[in-house]
Amino acid sequence: RLRDLLDALRPADVADLLGFLSEDYREQVIPWIPADALPDVLPELDDGIREEIVENLRPVDLAEVLQELDSDDAAAVFEDMEAEQQQAVLAAMDPEDREAMVTSLAFEEETAGRLMQREVVAAPDFWNVGDAIDHMRAHGADLPELFFDVYVISPTHKPIGALPVSLLMRTPREVRLSAIMEPITEIEVHLDQEEVAYIFEKYHLISAPVVDQGGRLVGQITVDDIVNIIQEENREDILALAGVSDEEGRDSTVFEVVRSRLPWLCVNLLTAFVASSLIGMFQSEIEKLVALAVLMPMVASIGGNSGTQALTVSVRALSARELTTANALRTVWREVRVGWFNGAVIAGILGCVAGTVWQNPMLGVTIALAVLINLTAAALAGTLVPLTLSRLDRDPAVASPIFVTMVTDCIGFFSFLGLAAIILL
Amino acid sequence: RLRDLLDALRPADVADLLGFLSEDYREQVIPWIPADALPDVLPELDDGIREEIVENLRPVDLAEVLQELDSDDAAAVFEDMEAEQQQAVLAAMDPEDREAMVTSLAFEEETAGRLMQREVVAAPDFWNVGDAIDHMRAHGADLPELFFDVYVISPTHKPIGALPVSLLMRTPREVRLSAIMEPITEIEVHLDQEEVAYIFEKYHLISAPVVDQGGRLVGQITVDDIVNIIQEENREDILALAGVSDEEGRDSTVFEVVRSRLPWLCVNLLTAFVASSLIGMFQSEIEKLVALAVLMPMVASIGGNSGTQALTVSVRALSARELTTANALRTVWREVRVGWFNGAVIAGILGCVAGTVWQNPMLGVTIALAVLINLTAAALAGTLVPLTLSRLDRDPAVASPIFVTMVTDCIGFFSFLGLAAIILL
Ligand SMILES: [Mg+2]
Ligand SMILES: [Mg+2]
Ligand SMILES: [Mg+2]
Ligand SMILES: [Mg+2]
Ligand SMILES: [Mg+2]
Ligand SMILES: [Mg+2]
Ligand SMILES: [Mg+2]
Ligand SMILES: [Mg+2]
Ligand SMILES: [Mg+2]
Ligand SMILES: [Mg+2]
Ligand SMILES: [Mg+2]
Ligand SMILES: [Mg+2]
Ligand SMILES: [Mg+2]
Repeated sequence: RLRDLLDALRPADVADLLGFLSEDYREQVIPWIPADALPDVLPELDDGIREEIVENLRPVDLAEVLQELDSDDAAAVFEDMEAEQQQAVLAAMDPEDREAMVTSLAFEEETAGRLMQREVVAAPDFWNVGDAIDHMRAHGADLPELFFDVYVISPTHKPIGALPVSLLMRTPREVRLSAIMEPITEIEVHLDQEEVAYIFEKYHLISAPVVDQGGRLVGQITVDDIVNIIQEENREDILALAGVSDEEGRDSTVFEVVRSRLPWLCVNLLTAFVASSLIGMFQSEIEKLVALAVLMPMVASIGGNSGTQALTVSVRALSARELTTANALRTVWREVRVGWFNGAVIAGILGCVAGTVWQNPMLGVTIALAVLINLTAAALAGTLVPLTLSRLDRDPAVASPIFVTMVTDCIGFFSFLGLAAIILL
Repeated sequence: RLRDLLDALRPADVADLLGFLSEDYREQVIPWIPADALPDVLPELDDGIREEIVENLRPVDLAEVLQELDSDDAAAVFEDMEAEQQQAVLAAMDPEDREAMVTSLAFEEETAGRLMQREVVAAPDFWNVGDAIDHMRAHGADLPELFFDVYVISPTHKPIGALPVSLLMRTPREVRLSAIMEPITEIEVHLDQEEVAYIFEKYHLISAPVVDQGGRLVGQITVDDIVNIIQEENREDILALAGVSDEEGRDSTVFEVVRSRLPWLCVNLLTAFVASSLIGMFQSEIEKLVALAVLMPMVASIGGNSGTQALTVSVRALSARELTTANALRTVWREVRVGWFNGAVIAGILGCVAGTVWQNPMLGVTIALAVLINLTAAALAGTLVPLTLSRLDRDPAVASPIFVTMVTDCIGFFSFLGLAAIILL
């Protein structure tokens, strides 16, 4: 029954189903995937599962499968294979496809060159609409299976404009392409995928021409692949902020998950040692007034949460290009004022409660002051740390949380215990 | 000079520029936006800035602008206007456009009905490719400015297939549409935008037909709008996890930012009170052994970080539909084992360091046990809380962090101080 189902499912659904099966079941089901569906299923699979399938295919069959795919999907499957299998598959490919594959893999991962498909439709700038239509109707079989824009190219093979197919469709035959073409957003082969995604999002692109360093058209990127990249980059950010590497996935083993999370916990342990030794400096104060021990985690906790708020907003704004040097100062200053305002409210509540419960008004004043100081530090660290990292061309999502929580922990404990030593003891 | 620049910029760039200007500058620059560019610029603007512009337009001009836009973009601009202005603008619109606007706004926000544009290209199922092409070439002016698929409809106006324009372009005229049409993914008008985005992503769609409850074609959604929605939903999740409402933006005032963040800090204060009163139960133990006060924040901090890791991974997996009832149990069990493994490492290090520094091996044993207990709790809370919330149809990103940090704080302090009371004192 499952077998019949597999026939009826779309490639993405087959991949989804395999993702939810446990490994044992999967082994049983994989051979049932219809051979003609396999090429379309492969690019959809989680990396680990694709490996299981690809390992067991003969090089000739695999070469066949890859040649059926658009060059970008073929490269995505190929790049994850073992070196040995890669060689065998290359040997089994047509010379033309082999050369295309080698060229594609010569580009760095996560760049436009690696993402692009080589299959494009281009038209010389002296053609008119009728020429373009006749060309497409005559050479239908040679065209990409699916395309959205025809790129108009100059005699030197540089793209100078784009024509959505629907525009061609409704324009009279005698109009020259160059008269109606739309401005293009060229993408250079070496551009990082994050930049590419930003450009697509900003200009609502469906496809964009990719050019080599000489400005010549070498391929195109389409928006369906960009959707995946946007999700990937978002996932990277959200996980990085929580101290998780983006290597782990639905089908990772316990050990792989440990490897993706333990490093951050160890760093966290180190910063906790620092905060702890700050507390250690005030042992005699704590012995004299045990209320300090009861209250100090609150100062650190509120500070940590404020810092995380500011940090997350900043990281998000940086990746959406909404925070740049143009408004950095204004943003930091706004965060500081927000910290003061929130700090005033929280300090007020906490000060009153602590002063009342412990029947010690000055204890209330002490914790209130410490909260204000710590929320100011949180606002500064939460904005300046990611801004600085991004200026240094580091990913602000990855390292910032370590710094920010260390700052708020240390300033929280130190300001509260230090002020207590001065004011109360 | 800026004025000339504005003429040359694309709509998205004009919007971007305005976003970076401070309010005073903006006031100066807004009147310079060329009138013919205004319709395309409006949908691109941040909500607050759009308001500044829209407020100052006369109803007739605004009606003019809206009628130039696709119905989805017009609705997006219209929905944010004051009720009074909405009435005036509606009165100034053509009856047909007015009716379209009213219908569009009758759908709930963040549903397919609100997102769709009514402009579609449909072809009856008895046409062949030649009919479709002739129709498009004859009625070019009435077609949407840009479209990617022609929907094949049954006599009852139900979409039964889709034809990418590029496929039409390269298929012989006499082929019947129904012979080459591709299966469609219908989107029901009431579907939530998050579901819509998931469908687009999964099936690599460029556009999809929207149907009413009777299954009749009423509009379409295109992928460029989905890209924005994906970013919106991701932003919502990442900010929610940090306790920030997604109302705040680049141009929010200090007060708006406070309103988006203070509620979470207050909840955090409440949970901190709970954790604090747990500590309060062990005051005499802390007085006897001040090391407890120095070390206890470490147990809570490591637990909080582990919980956040598990939580973030779970929330992300839930929103990517990679975590469902099908693999929930397996996932929880994996997280628990990860917690034990990480716990063993961290407990080992921390236990040795604490035992050595304080020259008290049993103190080392105590903190090690507490870490193990707390990381187990973190794994359970980090997965079960979001899973439960999502089962209850609540957004797991919004409320989970509160629960999870409360659990790890409380279990952290209680297990460490409680074990200390038993083992050490
Ligand atoms: Mg995919
Ligand atoms: Mg890959
Ligand atoms: Mg592709
Ligand atoms: Mg990556
Ligand atoms: Mg990246
Ligand atoms: Mg990034
Ligand atoms: Mg936009
Ligand atoms: Mg539009
Ligand atoms: Mg809106
Ligand atoms: Mg649209
Ligand atoms: Mg929303
Ligand atoms: Mg939502
Ligand atoms: Mg959501």
